[in-house]
Amino acid sequence: MVVREKILDTVVSCFKRHGAKGLDTPAFELKDMLTEKSEENFGLMYDLKDQGGELLSLRYDLTVPFARYLAMNKLKKMKRYQVGKVWRRESPAIVQGRYREFCQCDFDIAGQFDPMIPDAECLKIICEILSGLQLGDFLIKVNDRRIVDGMFAVCGVPESKFRTICASMDKLDKMSWKDVRHEMVVKKGLAPEVADRIGDYVQCHGGISLLEEMFQDPRLSQSKQALEGLRDLKLLFEYLTLFGIAEKISFDLSLARGLDYYTGVIYEAVLLKPAAQAGVESLNVGSVAAGGRYDDLVATFDPKGYKVPCVGLSIGVERIFYIVEQKMKTLGEKVRTSETQVFVATPQKNFLRERLKIIAELWDAGIKAEMLYKENPKLLTQLHYCEDMGIPLVVIIGEQEQKEGTLKLRSVASREEVAIKRENLVAEIQKQLSLS
Amino acid sequence: MVVREKILDTVVSCFKRHGAKGLDTPAFELKDMLTEKSEENFGLMYDLKDQGGELLSLRYDLTVPFARYLAMNKLKKMKRYQVGKVWRRESPAIVQGRYREFCQCDFDIAGQFDPMIPDAECLKIICEILSGLQLGDFLIKVNDRRIVDGMFAVCGVPESKFRTICASMDKLDKMSWKDVRHEMVVKKGLAPEVADRIGDYVQCHGGISLLEEMFQDPRLSQSKQALEGLRDLKLLFEYLTLFGIAEKISFDLSLARGLDYYTGVIYEAVLLKPAAQAGVESLNVGSVAAGGRYDDLVATFDPKGYKVPCVGLSIGVERIFYIVEQKMKTLGEKVRTSETQVFVATPQKNFLRERLKIIAELWDAGIKAEMLYKENPKLLTQLHYCEDMGIPLVVIIGEQEQKEGTLKLRSVASREEVAIKRENLVAEIQKQLSLS
Repeated sequence: MVVREKILDTVVSCFKRHGAKGLDTPAFELKDMLTEKSEENFGLMYDLKDQGGELLSLRYDLTVPFARYLAMNKLKKMKRYQVGKVWRRESPAIVQGRYREFCQCDFDIAGQFDPMIPDAECLKIICEILSGLQLGDFLIKVNDRRIVDGMFAVCGVPESKFRTICASMDKLDKMSWKDVRHEMVVKKGLAPEVADRIGDYVQCHGGISLLEEMFQDPRLSQSKQALEGLRDLKLLFEYLTLFGIAEKISFDLSLARGLDYYTGVIYEAVLLKPAAQAGVESLNVGSVAAGGRYDDLVATFDPKGYKVPCVGLSIGVERIFYIVEQKMKTLGEKVRTSETQVFVATPQKNFLRERLKIIAELWDAGIKAEMLYKENPKLLTQLHYCEDMGIPLVVIIGEQEQKEGTLKLRSVASREEVAIKRENLVAEIQKQLSLS
Repeated sequence: MVVREKILDTVVSCFKRHGAKGLDTPAFELKDMLTEKSEENFGLMYDLKDQGGELLSLRYDLTVPFARYLAMNKLKKMKRYQVGKVWRRESPAIVQGRYREFCQCDFDIAGQFDPMIPDAECLKIICEILSGLQLGDFLIKVNDRRIVDGMFAVCGVPESKFRTICASMDKLDKMSWKDVRHEMVVKKGLAPEVADRIGDYVQCHGGISLLEEMFQDPRLSQSKQALEGLRDLKLLFEYLTLFGIAEKISFDLSLARGLDYYTGVIYEAVLLKPAAQAGVESLNVGSVAAGGRYDDLVATFDPKGYKVPCVGLSIGVERIFYIVEQKMKTLGEKVRTSETQVFVATPQKNFLRERLKIIAELWDAGIKAEMLYKENPKLLTQLHYCEDMGIPLVVIIGEQEQKEGTLKLRSVASREEVAIKRENLVAEIQKQLSLS
């Protein structure tokens, strides 16, 4: 939980740095609304039992509820972030950092703006967060739905098969091309030569030069749609260069993104495995951040079909949490589970009342303090507790101190003790804490 | 959301100040497990549809899942806090600050300790949080389940009716004694003279002197159970005096707390209406914090019935949020929805690329910055945006500045502008921000 809080803190401060306001939407939505939006995810949803009233389901992402919120409130632009739980009925493979209930952190920019400026900011945000979390080297794969569809068209995929072939292609990060091709041909009835043409493209990834190459590609340049996508990506790369992050971005023709609602640029961040570092090698956590442009989703919730173009991203905090945890295990790091700064102890009996007075003073001064909930605890038990919990300072009150109007202040690490005046308690502790 | 975050921040920092670690448990639990624990709340639960697998329900509080967690992990002590959503199938009366989905903030101390020390800390925490939030004067009503049961017994309530009469008594904060008495006698078949005996007690509230009086009460002192409760409350008041909060606490014989699982001390904090302040008068939000001791709940989840005594509290953040919002409306305060510190503007065309470079520098330095997502926005539009959003500083880049290698820094409030060197951008802004 402490690690988790730190991660969320990095993510949320970045969202705020980019001017986003926080938003919270309910955990359940109308079942029909969710199912309409994503047929592929249909089976993954948790429905609520019919107990009278509307049929409800638990949200499986934060994007659809956000689009519904925009339409319902007739908002034409908004930059918002949201941190919340989502639920999917998957067999949990906890080992891989996937759960049935998990936390999502989303940032989205809604509104009609000049091309690629908000899109570039989304990629900048992903870079800032992944750098800030110090997860090691990473790469953001970028593509465009229009390039994917254009590619399918020029390769000869029948339009009715676009979405299902796209879903197969989306598995390329987990399966080899050979297996994906097999699925396309055998399961989905695609002509082998069509699949092979797709196969040529999905091997391609690179930077701006690949973009230029695709502009010249005799087949792909036949598609007006693909050319639009390529033109936008070129502009995007220009902005990313100004942001100083172009070297982190790879134009990747194999990137498809499973969700139906994307209409333009799509992206997915992956961690590059540190070859040198043993123990972390076995991690195969997939993407740690992803997103894209979805210009038509809001209109589907608006009775008049009013369009609000959107682009956004989602940070895979559960996977990041898993990676950080594994790293810490490998490095043998231990995290404190509480933040307690001072422990109030006594070596003698009958000092409960004095301890209660002292600890109340500390709390009232905003100092994080604990004591044992026993009338007469042993001193050793109290000092062990401090060591176990990593509490740095101990205030000790005993007969001697009470007589003299003093207190002892003990450093747990050095075991040094100094006497301080009773009335200077808070000031002395604040001094000690600011030094450490 | 901004107000909400501030409230949650006050609450969570207080929990941490008292040494609690954060915990997160799933949103749904086994349906049977939840229904067994609280028959009264049975109808309030959201059940998930049977889609194969276990029958699940959404949690309606954080206490039952915490107890389940302790038992499952065989934990014998723990001091934890949890902030999370809970769901109840109530007709939402949003006006009163009650919803079907709401956020709860819980703090609990589990473990076998010396009497009343953790209990006193829970009351101290409620005081710290309510003082910290500056909600105005408040009072914490305290009673003990054993005193309630003892009172019922000596008044002549048949034991089989204890829980249902207790539930009626719990309505005393919303209903008059006359109406509660009517419910007890007519709906629940209690003898009128028994109800009248209860009526004598529920009028009583006060401090330590009332406690002493009840020790002497000829009827109540017949109950061994009640005497145990009174003895514990006496010790509790002693500790609360040491904590300096005894004057905030009222021993109140009308306090019952609806939940079945309480076994000892129970408490509920209410705001005292500020008679002077108009506009806030109409608020009747009920309790803003509550809790108590539940020593037997964990054992019900343990196959061997191992007992882990617990005491805890829950902060009613939704109601507090509602109160703070109302207060701000009355006082005409406006809250910024984003935290943006600097806006990057231009008075001329064709400065998008320069603006992108500048804003990336600011973001990389951790400065919260925004710009308009337009290639060539009007200066007035940009300055209006800053005023609307309450952004204090503007960096301006134009032809003149570019020629000179400078930038203009404009204060939105004073409309003053100063020229700074381009290379000092980040340093100058940090200086300005630290001054304001």
